[in-house]
Amino acid sequence: MLHILALFSFLLVSSSHAAVQDFCVADLTAPQGPAGYSCKTPAEVTADDFVYSGLSQPGNTSSLFNAAINTAFVDKFPGLNGLGLSMARADLAPGGVVPMHTHHGASETILIAKGSITAGFISSDNTVYLKTLKEGDIMVFPQGLLHFQVNTGRTQAHFWVSFGSSNPGIQILSNALFSNNLPSELIEKTTFLDDDEVKRLKALLGGSG
Amino acid sequence: MLHILALFSFLLVSSSHAAVQDFCVADLTAPQGPAGYSCKTPAEVTADDFVYSGLSQPGNTSSLFNAAINTAFVDKFPGLNGLGLSMARADLAPGGVVPMHTHHGASETILIAKGSITAGFISSDNTVYLKTLKEGDIMVFPQGLLHFQVNTGRTQAHFWVSFGSSNPGIQILSNALFSNNLPSELIEKTTFLDDDEVKRLKALLGGSG
Amino acid sequence: MLHILALFSFLLVSSSHAAVQDFCVADLTAPQGPAGYSCKTPAEVTADDFVYSGLSQPGNTSSLFNAAINTAFVDKFPGLNGLGLSMARADLAPGGVVPMHTHHGASETILIAKGSITAGFISSDNTVYLKTLKEGDIMVFPQGLLHFQVNTGRTQAHFWVSFGSSNPGIQILSNALFSNNLPSELIEKTTFLDDDEVKRLKALLGGSG
Amino acid sequence: MLHILALFSFLLVSSSHAAVQDFCVADLTAPQGPAGYSCKTPAEVTADDFVYSGLSQPGNTSSLFNAAINTAFVDKFPGLNGLGLSMARADLAPGGVVPMHTHHGASETILIAKGSITAGFISSDNTVYLKTLKEGDIMVFPQGLLHFQVNTGRTQAHFWVSFGSSNPGIQILSNALFSNNLPSELIEKTTFLDDDEVKRLKALLGGSG
Amino acid sequence: MLHILALFSFLLVSSSHAAVQDFCVADLTAPQGPAGYSCKTPAEVTADDFVYSGLSQPGNTSSLFNAAINTAFVDKFPGLNGLGLSMARADLAPGGVVPMHTHHGASETILIAKGSITAGFISSDNTVYLKTLKEGDIMVFPQGLLHFQVNTGRTQAHFWVSFGSSNPGIQILSNALFSNNLPSELIEKTTFLDDDEVKRLKALLGGSG
Amino acid sequence: MLHILALFSFLLVSSSHAAVQDFCVADLTAPQGPAGYSCKTPAEVTADDFVYSGLSQPGNTSSLFNAAINTAFVDKFPGLNGLGLSMARADLAPGGVVPMHTHHGASETILIAKGSITAGFISSDNTVYLKTLKEGDIMVFPQGLLHFQVNTGRTQAHFWVSFGSSNPGIQILSNALFSNNLPSELIEKTTFLDDDEVKRLKALLGGSG
Repeated sequence: MLHILALFSFLLVSSSHAAVQDFCVADLTAPQGPAGYSCKTPAEVTADDFVYSGLSQPGNTSSLFNAAINTAFVDKFPGLNGLGLSMARADLAPGGVVPMHTHHGASETILIAKGSITAGFISSDNTVYLKTLKEGDIMVFPQGLLHFQVNTGRTQAHFWVSFGSSNPGIQILSNALFSNNLPSELIEKTTFLDDDEVKRLKALLGGSG
Repeated sequence: MLHILALFSFLLVSSSHAAVQDFCVADLTAPQGPAGYSCKTPAEVTADDFVYSGLSQPGNTSSLFNAAINTAFVDKFPGLNGLGLSMARADLAPGGVVPMHTHHGASETILIAKGSITAGFISSDNTVYLKTLKEGDIMVFPQGLLHFQVNTGRTQAHFWVSFGSSNPGIQILSNALFSNNLPSELIEKTTFLDDDEVKRLKALLGGSG
Repeated sequence: MLHILALFSFLLVSSSHAAVQDFCVADLTAPQGPAGYSCKTPAEVTADDFVYSGLSQPGNTSSLFNAAINTAFVDKFPGLNGLGLSMARADLAPGGVVPMHTHHGASETILIAKGSITAGFISSDNTVYLKTLKEGDIMVFPQGLLHFQVNTGRTQAHFWVSFGSSNPGIQILSNALFSNNLPSELIEKTTFLDDDEVKRLKALLGGSG
Repeated sequence: MLHILALFSFLLVSSSHAAVQDFCVADLTAPQGPAGYSCKTPAEVTADDFVYSGLSQPGNTSSLFNAAINTAFVDKFPGLNGLGLSMARADLAPGGVVPMHTHHGASETILIAKGSITAGFISSDNTVYLKTLKEGDIMVFPQGLLHFQVNTGRTQAHFWVSFGSSNPGIQILSNALFSNNLPSELIEKTTFLDDDEVKRLKALLGGSG
Repeated sequence: MLHILALFSFLLVSSSHAAVQDFCVADLTAPQGPAGYSCKTPAEVTADDFVYSGLSQPGNTSSLFNAAINTAFVDKFPGLNGLGLSMARADLAPGGVVPMHTHHGASETILIAKGSITAGFISSDNTVYLKTLKEGDIMVFPQGLLHFQVNTGRTQAHFWVSFGSSNPGIQILSNALFSNNLPSELIEKTTFLDDDEVKRLKALLGGSG
Repeated sequence: MLHILALFSFLLVSSSHAAVQDFCVADLTAPQGPAGYSCKTPAEVTADDFVYSGLSQPGNTSSLFNAAINTAFVDKFPGLNGLGLSMARADLAPGGVVPMHTHHGASETILIAKGSITAGFISSDNTVYLKTLKEGDIMVFPQGLLHFQVNTGRTQAHFWVSFGSSNPGIQILSNALFSNNLPSELIEKTTFLDDDEVKRLKALLGGSG
């Protein structure tokens, strides 16, 4: 009986050979396409490909703004490739800030692990959705809208971030405007900021032009 | 000058009127379609619609299996509707178990907030991907594959779950087989379990037939 | 012979009855879901539902910034519902500006119909992609990234905009920051702008707080 | 022990309450959106909603062209709503024809159940992919391309059709051109057919104008 | 006139050169990505790439369970790549069984070609949807839910299976649990099965540990 | 202070390293998959990749049908890869025609830049949606349906076309039928055209067989 069962089992496994590729762990050295990285050969995939430990420690919040952000996107965590999910960790000292930014590729949830955070996003009709969150609260930020988080509590804060894409992107407003060579005149014309302010922020954030 | 600027601002806001619907907070009382719930009128949406506090407290793990699972899917957290994300919280006493299950609608990540968890999933070719995770580790589970988590540490454990759908579904294997009226003969023929075991588990898990 | 052919024709038409709904013209008065508006009854749909004339005239560019933008999104052009496309028209007097903005829901192409435009977008790693475009040039802007257009020519300019969504959204940076009640302190903390500048722009663009 | 197990089971079932909607059986009387019909209340769904018997009998092939086509699209088989699949049945007497047609909404496979069929499709660069198929053969037709099937055998033939959409649409070329009021002059200008032929086919297929 | 027409035709064909790639026949030797296999060069594609004959013969049902399943997924039928469809064939002797299983990647329809089949699936809230099907009946199984088919008739049965993905995956419950090295203790904890039963099934189905 | 700010800025840029790939400019020499071409290395991408000038000049309308069509699909404009948009330009002398055709891969809008155009499409139930359009009018054509445009005005006409795919395909009806080796007998059986007409058009459009 075992013999026949094993045969049957073999046939089923064999018939499902096409389905081995239940996942597509990124081969970071191979060509990338619009849907993500090429897949590692299934035979070389191990459980380790599906685990990432890089967010286990708090980031160093001793920067001027008392915040650290670390990401677990597909380029660091290849097992996420094609699965439509990624994560990040934010640590904020009191008064710390995750600056105004957008993710062009996915909506986002945050889960407050420690402390108290004031978070908000702004919709296309310029309405502000603003809340102060406490431990265990979840807030969702719709895809592509400007949003921010501030530690308005008195203690170190820490929250987990989830994205609905393995590569959501992150565009930090002030870096996008002031940390490159976008000519000051164009910034001023397209944002209505005055020249002094643009130059001050370019100096501060490493921009030129 | 203010007058003209205000006019310009008005024109821009007005031109973006079509885009007010950056989100689609679920109206749980209105018709549902394949893509999710109908949207609440934007004028009635507030910041509270984007925040959920129902996972802030640990679940009660004093059940036989020392585990509690609570979900923040779209039916409880309407702001998630259409945004492709949801969450859950698992608390496990030592030896506690999240039983073998699948989510037909999304891939999943877990983030170990406290304790140590042994987790695994099984692929279409019957390979087991198994790891013991510690605090801060992330593991990803590809969509629709059988997986489980066990607290193999000595202390209470707790992890956060993220899904790439606002309604990922959850099918717990033993409940699917033994907590309904699926005839025992059909279970036995299609799972190779013996009759005694099926009847024992039906009795245990509330099934009939 | 005609009789039999007609019968055959009838059978084919009848068999395709399920497929009448090749489109889903928006019923703007009915519930909306994550995938768009409810569909108008097919019997009430006419060719007029698929045509929009609202962009045929230049907008009035006599505002301070010498620009006018008009959109043909699904709320104005119901035939677009569910078809993944929409359009807009921009008219810019010399020196006119389409301010820094994003579309969270779609990528965009522009086609220069008249004049000369300097356009650019900024990527997640803060690189600027900047070009001066002449009549007949097409430029593509990836989804959700900050971009802008300026009439750097000496004559009136005009360009057509296409989006890969019937409701791409439009978030104009300065309006998002300064045309609402987002507290100045939060703006300053999350953008590094100074207080004077924030207050000047709030006054200019109709914000409070 | 049963008591505690039942409680645990209850919690799990309860926590998965959000996921009851694993499917969205069409309510054919409620509003339709771009993603399909509204869902029937889950409590009213039965196994019968997932079964369709309307293709069990051969169609009547005694028309001039010796063919009958019957569809099982979502409007007849509501359980398909939102699941991305539908089917059809074709019966062809010897010499019978499924005329040149397209499905705008999905790719298609056919499976020859009886007889022999010559089938083909034409690609965008006007290449013809043509094969004579025997019982048990499968052929795939990429979405939206012109294709046809002819019974080139000596016996009654019958094949099953599968589509990757619950509502793939079906546009039969000759009916699209000649079974309506599209003015003959426009047909002639846009197809290069001559006037006599257009008028002959309009008369044959019920067109006017 | 022919000359000019040919030129026009050439221009049109040429302008559609971008669109040659109406399909993406799998190059099974080239890198694979999340959306499927790399495409064979169009010039090497022939009609044979779109036809598969491997399901034309009944499988051998002389196994213990009197059933045979054969698949036509993209790894065997490269023309399916990127087209969102695949097929399978099941043959069942009287009493034969397609064991409890899931497809993580697609919904499924079955079409009863011969005999009588009892089929069912189980939803997230543990409801059983069960039907006995006769020749010509179609049943749909929503994506990722546990389901099974049994030949409850007195004659050989045979049905065709269609999937809404070129690579739907197939996870057979008892093989997933008992045909690998998943430790018995973990199986028991996560399924509530007793140790004797787990060991019996591991022995039967080729598992270890 | 600058030092610390620069550090912070660096951390943010670094944390967003995963997101550099906001776009996927086509490497036309590398493997292609179902989702599009492989991506050019980001470091080699310049603003020029996002701009296309090939549609700036009118096509030559001195063909028999007084029309010229030029496309800006991904094979000519690599920056479109993965962004879900493309364009085309049509120029028509008085009486000029864009023949009956379909795009299998996307819906389409046209924007009349000059002149007057009569345009129409035909739905699955053979209804004709027909309109005469003037300068500035937009018309939308749902994916995969037969449609056409004719210059019914007295002057040169010109319109811009937008598609919701970077590679929408284009199948021109008369070329698909008559510019290849599809056997006349099959054309006649599947379209009901008579033999003389088929042979006349094959001769005219370069077909054989």
